[in-house]
Amino acid sequence: MLNGPNLNLLGERDPDQYGKETLQDIENSLKEAYPDIDFIFLQSNHEGDLIDAIHSVRSGTIDGLLANWGGFTHSSVAIHDALELINIPKVEVHLSNIHAREEFRERSITGKAMDGIITGFGINSYLLGTEALKQLSSK
Amino acid sequence: MLNGPNLNLLGERDPDQYGKETLQDIENSLKEAYPDIDFIFLQSNHEGDLIDAIHSVRSGTIDGLLANWGGFTHSSVAIHDALELINIPKVEVHLSNIHAREEFRERSITGKAMDGIITGFGINSYLLGTEALKQLSSK
Amino acid sequence: MLNGPNLNLLGERDPDQYGKETLQDIENSLKEAYPDIDFIFLQSNHEGDLIDAIHSVRSGTIDGLLANWGGFTHSSVAIHDALELINIPKVEVHLSNIHAREEFRERSITGKAMDGIITGFGINSYLLGTEALKQLSSK
Amino acid sequence: MLNGPNLNLLGERDPDQYGKETLQDIENSLKEAYPDIDFIFLQSNHEGDLIDAIHSVRSGTIDGLLANWGGFTHSSVAIHDALELINIPKVEVHLSNIHAREEFRERSITGKAMDGIITGFGINSYLLGTEALKQLSSK
Amino acid sequence: MLNGPNLNLLGERDPDQYGKETLQDIENSLKEAYPDIDFIFLQSNHEGDLIDAIHSVRSGTIDGLLANWGGFTHSSVAIHDALELINIPKVEVHLSNIHAREEFRERSITGKAMDGIITGFGINSYLLGTEALKQLSSK
Amino acid sequence: MLNGPNLNLLGERDPDQYGKETLQDIENSLKEAYPDIDFIFLQSNHEGDLIDAIHSVRSGTIDGLLANWGGFTHSSVAIHDALELINIPKVEVHLSNIHAREEFRERSITGKAMDGIITGFGINSYLLGTEALKQLSSK
Amino acid sequence: MLNGPNLNLLGERDPDQYGKETLQDIENSLKEAYPDIDFIFLQSNHEGDLIDAIHSVRSGTIDGLLANWGGFTHSSVAIHDALELINIPKVEVHLSNIHAREEFRERSITGKAMDGIITGFGINSYLLGTEALKQLSSK
Amino acid sequence: MLNGPNLNLLGERDPDQYGKETLQDIENSLKEAYPDIDFIFLQSNHEGDLIDAIHSVRSGTIDGLLANWGGFTHSSVAIHDALELINIPKVEVHLSNIHAREEFRERSITGKAMDGIITGFGINSYLLGTEALKQLSSK
Amino acid sequence: MLNGPNLNLLGERDPDQYGKETLQDIENSLKEAYPDIDFIFLQSNHEGDLIDAIHSVRSGTIDGLLANWGGFTHSSVAIHDALELINIPKVEVHLSNIHAREEFRERSITGKAMDGIITGFGINSYLLGTEALKQLSSK
Amino acid sequence: MLNGPNLNLLGERDPDQYGKETLQDIENSLKEAYPDIDFIFLQSNHEGDLIDAIHSVRSGTIDGLLANWGGFTHSSVAIHDALELINIPKVEVHLSNIHAREEFRERSITGKAMDGIITGFGINSYLLGTEALKQLSSK
Amino acid sequence: MLNGPNLNLLGERDPDQYGKETLQDIENSLKEAYPDIDFIFLQSNHEGDLIDAIHSVRSGTIDGLLANWGGFTHSSVAIHDALELINIPKVEVHLSNIHAREEFRERSITGKAMDGIITGFGINSYLLGTEALKQLSSK
Amino acid sequence: MLNGPNLNLLGERDPDQYGKETLQDIENSLKEAYPDIDFIFLQSNHEGDLIDAIHSVRSGTIDGLLANWGGFTHSSVAIHDALELINIPKVEVHLSNIHAREEFRERSITGKAMDGIITGFGINSYLLGTEALKQLSSK
Repeated sequence: MLNGPNLNLLGERDPDQYGKETLQDIENSLKEAYPDIDFIFLQSNHEGDLIDAIHSVRSGTIDGLLANWGGFTHSSVAIHDALELINIPKVEVHLSNIHAREEFRERSITGKAMDGIITGFGINSYLLGTEALKQLSSK
Repeated sequence: MLNGPNLNLLGERDPDQYGKETLQDIENSLKEAYPDIDFIFLQSNHEGDLIDAIHSVRSGTIDGLLANWGGFTHSSVAIHDALELINIPKVEVHLSNIHAREEFRERSITGKAMDGIITGFGINSYLLGTEALKQLSSK
Repeated sequence: MLNGPNLNLLGERDPDQYGKETLQDIENSLKEAYPDIDFIFLQSNHEGDLIDAIHSVRSGTIDGLLANWGGFTHSSVAIHDALELINIPKVEVHLSNIHAREEFRERSITGKAMDGIITGFGINSYLLGTEALKQLSSK
Repeated sequence: MLNGPNLNLLGERDPDQYGKETLQDIENSLKEAYPDIDFIFLQSNHEGDLIDAIHSVRSGTIDGLLANWGGFTHSSVAIHDALELINIPKVEVHLSNIHAREEFRERSITGKAMDGIITGFGINSYLLGTEALKQLSSK
Repeated sequence: MLNGPNLNLLGERDPDQYGKETLQDIENSLKEAYPDIDFIFLQSNHEGDLIDAIHSVRSGTIDGLLANWGGFTHSSVAIHDALELINIPKVEVHLSNIHAREEFRERSITGKAMDGIITGFGINSYLLGTEALKQLSSK
Repeated sequence: MLNGPNLNLLGERDPDQYGKETLQDIENSLKEAYPDIDFIFLQSNHEGDLIDAIHSVRSGTIDGLLANWGGFTHSSVAIHDALELINIPKVEVHLSNIHAREEFRERSITGKAMDGIITGFGINSYLLGTEALKQLSSK
Repeated sequence: MLNGPNLNLLGERDPDQYGKETLQDIENSLKEAYPDIDFIFLQSNHEGDLIDAIHSVRSGTIDGLLANWGGFTHSSVAIHDALELINIPKVEVHLSNIHAREEFRERSITGKAMDGIITGFGINSYLLGTEALKQLSSK
Repeated sequence: MLNGPNLNLLGERDPDQYGKETLQDIENSLKEAYPDIDFIFLQSNHEGDLIDAIHSVRSGTIDGLLANWGGFTHSSVAIHDALELINIPKVEVHLSNIHAREEFRERSITGKAMDGIITGFGINSYLLGTEALKQLSSK
Repeated sequence: MLNGPNLNLLGERDPDQYGKETLQDIENSLKEAYPDIDFIFLQSNHEGDLIDAIHSVRSGTIDGLLANWGGFTHSSVAIHDALELINIPKVEVHLSNIHAREEFRERSITGKAMDGIITGFGINSYLLGTEALKQLSSK
Repeated sequence: MLNGPNLNLLGERDPDQYGKETLQDIENSLKEAYPDIDFIFLQSNHEGDLIDAIHSVRSGTIDGLLANWGGFTHSSVAIHDALELINIPKVEVHLSNIHAREEFRERSITGKAMDGIITGFGINSYLLGTEALKQLSSK
Repeated sequence: MLNGPNLNLLGERDPDQYGKETLQDIENSLKEAYPDIDFIFLQSNHEGDLIDAIHSVRSGTIDGLLANWGGFTHSSVAIHDALELINIPKVEVHLSNIHAREEFRERSITGKAMDGIITGFGINSYLLGTEALKQLSSK
Repeated sequence: MLNGPNLNLLGERDPDQYGKETLQDIENSLKEAYPDIDFIFLQSNHEGDLIDAIHSVRSGTIDGLLANWGGFTHSSVAIHDALELINIPKVEVHLSNIHAREEFRERSITGKAMDGIITGFGINSYLLGTEALKQLSSK
């Protein structure tokens, strides 16, 4: 599971809107809900770190990619190109509904290279995304 | 569950890409996966029928709306305005990833008035959408 | 008097902003204010019904058209073309000021084929529109 | 043969430009010119009816589709998607030359899913379109 | 009542389209139709004079603003900002239907800061606008 | 009959898509199908030659113009202006459906000055175009 | 002869490019070159003054209008509308070539309502413009 | 110090956001903070007056220009051209952050001809602007 | 003097608007008005011929270029680049006012490399252009 | 104080335009001018480092943020989102006037989440920005 | 080797920037550097001549195409289509860097149908292009 | 030689299209082809690392820059600004032809600050780029 810029602050930010769960809480929820899955968690504010992490998938030991690219979603051709190089199931999630915010958030450059996108369900987006990944992997 | 134009042909269309399931199969899967939920299914190629159906939600006996607006997604201000009038959880689903197709499919006018969108997981989008609805309803 | 999509819910929607009057109340007000006029009222969420109704004007027994096209205002070339086919006075009304809302509501495609537009006066737009129609008819 | 919105008024409208023929006259001309062809005629101002009619083609008894989508030509993604689902020859016709009118009529969304388009020849467009269909069917 | 550039020539200009009434005739009609209202009339070709006049409304003795901004309608941010500073009812009128003319006249910058707009009814727009103002004031 | 750039290579190019007919074959087919018509054929890769040919129509011995402007269709204001100068029936044809290809092919500058356009029927577009011309001439 | 904003500074500004002539020198040159013409000169930095001056042409004693609208050229709908109201010959001049400068100077809103435009010849533009006016007046 | 349209109302407008200081208070603050500077203050709602004032700078007795062009900032080519004619230090200030408001306020046409811009610090923008001017003058 | 596409038909085309003068008449008028000037006249519908002619200016025996590029004005980068290579005075003329016609005629690509443009005076544009050239040459 | 990409080279770059001061000199000037303020300086060419630094502000020991985002100003949604998460005063500075350079520098994405922007005063922008921060902090 | 408009003047034009080499010199350099290659050189200012030359490649005796389309690069759909018809290696070269000049030179329509593009190295672009062609041919 | 994001995977990716060479193979080929040149190789997925590397060129021991910016090519203003700061020869290379792919790859922001660009020759682009650098350095 990859998380892009600013997601390390989840839980501190606007608790009324997003709930009080931190990124750590989400990770715990995912482990609890899917005990059979070995999760690897990475959060970074560095576009390059995220690309490096996408590349590391080539090791062959990873079965799926769940990612929230944050602010890189709408502009990063480099992440997009990295995603095109890997062949495992790839699911993009967003906390808020990107179609209901500023116009520059409607477009997902990274999402063009993902299998699907789940947007607008708060931290539940992560659980739904994991479920989606599991189903994609079993095809 | 509302389905917009052309979705009545699901299963006939390009089985290699979308699987052989028909809309009836999806409905059966949903009933089976969520036996506690009373589903009401409507598919229509008429924008007006869909708006009428959205309005009927005001009867107060419906707890959530799962919808695939098909080709109306990208242009219907009228459906958008209808959705703004109802206050139950609303989830939009798409079979294919709307961000990975023609440019005119990237934008979702209807989605601006939904809680969230799940796009790109084939018929699994419907199951994930029902799960999302259930979680929204329990908040 | 033609009313487009979602206007059947008037009065239920956001009473603080638009008042508690329902579409029925507006119809009663119009009849009361203009007892000499025989009104025909139609509300539909179906673009086709509205086009059919515009065509019915050719019967020759109708002297003027008062319409609120709702969400179809900004995109319906078909309603625009229907309006071009009839020669009676035609007045478009809107409850809210379409120039003070989202950018996609600033343009009125249907309005290009109307005599004039009255926008922003709540249900008073209907009374002003009827007055305008009366004046156009007496020319 | 499918006809979109407002084409039911053909012949009443601007006889100097389009001639006095009504839609009924066109239908008669087509039957007369092509006595070997069994025509099914449908005109509707309802987008949904047109989509339903496109779907009915799947019955397997129809060899070709001749259509004038009227005002839906320039915006209907739903009709476009319906057309993509059927595999018989499909010809789009227009009475006037869509390239010589308002800018918003230059683009044909529906035409992207048709075999070809014939535009600008008045009611002759229908005869030429039938000829084109016949040739496509014999390939 | 404020009138923007070129409206001083009303009546001289294209009498077949707008009638022979001059701005003076309109003023007389308004006084006659609404004898209980004290009108203050100002016409100016100077954007600054119009802004000064809007500001003078703060004197507290003026109950409503009826204005035709003429060519300034489509570009004046300064008039728009002045209008945002005053809290009395504000109605914008136009002689011709701004949605049925050149594309650069479709947008109303000033109208974003008005309560409503009445466009396309010739000099009747002024009478309808006064009626609208009266109704806004009595709320 | 005028043919624009690259059409001299017809038949050599992608025979699976367009058939094996060469431009010469088309010319023969036209002569055979319309033995009563005296055809004059010109193909040129030079915009100026095509304009010269359009001008030569003024000799008064030519009754109609059938043309495929090829790549000049989408940008040549000079051909457009030449076409506006001649008053005989003018029909534009295209082998492929210009609405179903790259976005820059959707617009026809030359077509704005033609009577009508037939696009997408391969070499049959020429036969349909000749039929259309014949009907235009007999009006 | 009307001159728009900043032209009062002519001669002080960048003498290497425009020469040392002041607006007064231009006026003298015009009087000398055309002794039979009674010139009326007005320069103003106020859009409203220029509109007032255009209106004054209706007195009937003025045979032609030579104008350099300066920075108002590219945006003033109000001057454009004023120009449409007067029927004498109207010539617009510019010192520099408006097509060879910033992109926002390429368009002339005011020029749409003028007979013709002369742009790029420095102060000679005024002499050429007077010659053009004389020829327009003698038609 | 030049102030554009509507700034004469400062202090009356939205005191919660901008504080209660009037333009007079700002002027007093500037004189107090910079007793060695002789300020000349001008506020006008007339674009032409502001251009006249810019021109008056040529008298040679003025060392710097501090200006808030208000609504003219985003569209006035005429003010822009006037500013290009004068060579003293020029600083543009705005009360609110023009990059954080409506999209049409992001661009500063006038600012292209200023040395620098200070935007978003309320009335402090004036003090910072004076400081900036002083530093520019001492170079 | 260079004339672009379609100008060879001058005089035949719409005599009410442009007068009955042919290109030959214009040439005679120019020779008569300017007997001291040796004119070289070329009209071509071929962009390449016009570029060749521009290049021939390098022979050193030509003092100025008067040209009407016709339909090439709005799109020819090649003519623009050729014009940049020669250093004699260059004047572009147009019969009609390019700012008062279709939007795609407002821009002059070729004009970016000319000294100035004279547009809208019918065949007088040529006489004014020659006068302008003469003045440019004497600088 | 945060400095974005390439600002580490300040002083080496184009000394005629920006002066010879290095980033170190600026830091010294700031410390000298504001001895009571404890500055923390960071320059990085890494977008992620800058986001990390913005987050570190949450430690509670930092009272204000002065930043020059360099090339990230015009495109970084990630920095913009990070800035929205912190509540201390935030001032953006630029050495050159971003409104007077290439069009893609006119927009400030990061600036939408700052209190204000100071642009165009060379290294003085930093001093003015510090002054602005001090005033914001004392509110 | 094909050269488009204005390249015949190479060497005369701006020798400081491009060097003194003429097109003849380049041809000599290429022959000298690649004595084993039989070059055929063509320069034309006529788009049609260049298309004819592209077609001549079908003779089968030509192994590769090196071309500088000059001003046709950015707009010629006809050359683009001609290039798509031939299957030999195709390399486009430009003297100057098309990405560092006017915005309308950034796009290469012709380049979409070439194997690759070499831009910005002056006459060396031709040598590099020949090397590239040689490598493409040997694959 | 600098390589941007994802180029570390070269050789693994789509061997049919790009060949089996890895980045290491390219480096070996360059060393072998140009034994007299001391190459320094850097690949990074981090924009900041690439900017740091560009800056390191100032050490004075580097004679030229060969770079493939990958996905940063089309959006990085920060790399563009860094490139403007260094004065050695700079050549940009791309494996695929950026003009023949998605529209968002046609523009090269970084390339505006490079001497030239070589695009579309697979790994040969690197060899050609080195040759180009060598020639630039010897000028």
